[in-house]
Amino acid sequence: MSDELVLRPIGWVESELRERADAPRQGDEGAPEAWVVFDDSVRDALADVKPGDEVILISWFDRADREVQKVHPRGDVARPATGVFSTRSPDRPNPLGLHRVRVLAVDGLRVRVSDLEALDGTPIVDVKPVLGGVSER
Amino acid sequence: MSDELVLRPIGWVESELRERADAPRQGDEGAPEAWVVFDDSVRDALADVKPGDEVILISWFDRADREVQKVHPRGDVARPATGVFSTRSPDRPNPLGLHRVRVLAVDGLRVRVSDLEALDGTPIVDVKPVLGGVSER
Repeated sequence: MSDELVLRPIGWVESELRERADAPRQGDEGAPEAWVVFDDSVRDALADVKPGDEVILISWFDRADREVQKVHPRGDVARPATGVFSTRSPDRPNPLGLHRVRVLAVDGLRVRVSDLEALDGTPIVDVKPVLGGVSER
Repeated sequence: MSDELVLRPIGWVESELRERADAPRQGDEGAPEAWVVFDDSVRDALADVKPGDEVILISWFDRADREVQKVHPRGDVARPATGVFSTRSPDRPNPLGLHRVRVLAVDGLRVRVSDLEALDGTPIVDVKPVLGGVSER
């Protein structure tokens, strides 16, 4: 476990969601539109992202607790604690988030997206196209 | 861009795929079964992963070129270069891979999965359940 793999933020979320208590648990439970503001250093990588695209944003849950390995589903302590690799809890050893969103507008390095359940200020570390067929979901 | 976000490997791939030239471009193009061997430090997080589960593995493409921002689709130089955020190229600023796989067997910290296009020795950094509905894919 001595290896360290270093990510750098490529962008940041601008959202009305300010605290974890505000955030829906998944994007289909009423998450708002938001902006992702990309760093100028990734302008070329972003060049072909356009309105209408369905993309997966990978975020870094910067307010997560990385020591947590089990959680009660939906915070309900009456339900048995579940290993976090079987949940989408932001609290996990590597606090990466997957967010399937639709690109609504592109304004230079600012990209408007649908249904993003990430908090304001959350770093974004990757953008990938949604694939058809048996791709991951 | 001064922030550094540090991932730690939670497991590693054991696969017959040894080199990038061996790897199919997506998991549905004939990727083999493989083992993922998890670190003992994440035993509790892994506790509820079981055969039959569909999961998303997030890998770290440790042989990627992080300076690449545009690639020719499928390596075909006759096709226009495309920003990597619109491709699944492993060469990208943060070389994370998404792999939708099915869990075939669990033997302690060793998990057998279907259709994994990652090379032998590739670090795994997260495991998430596949969600229904409009979740990311």
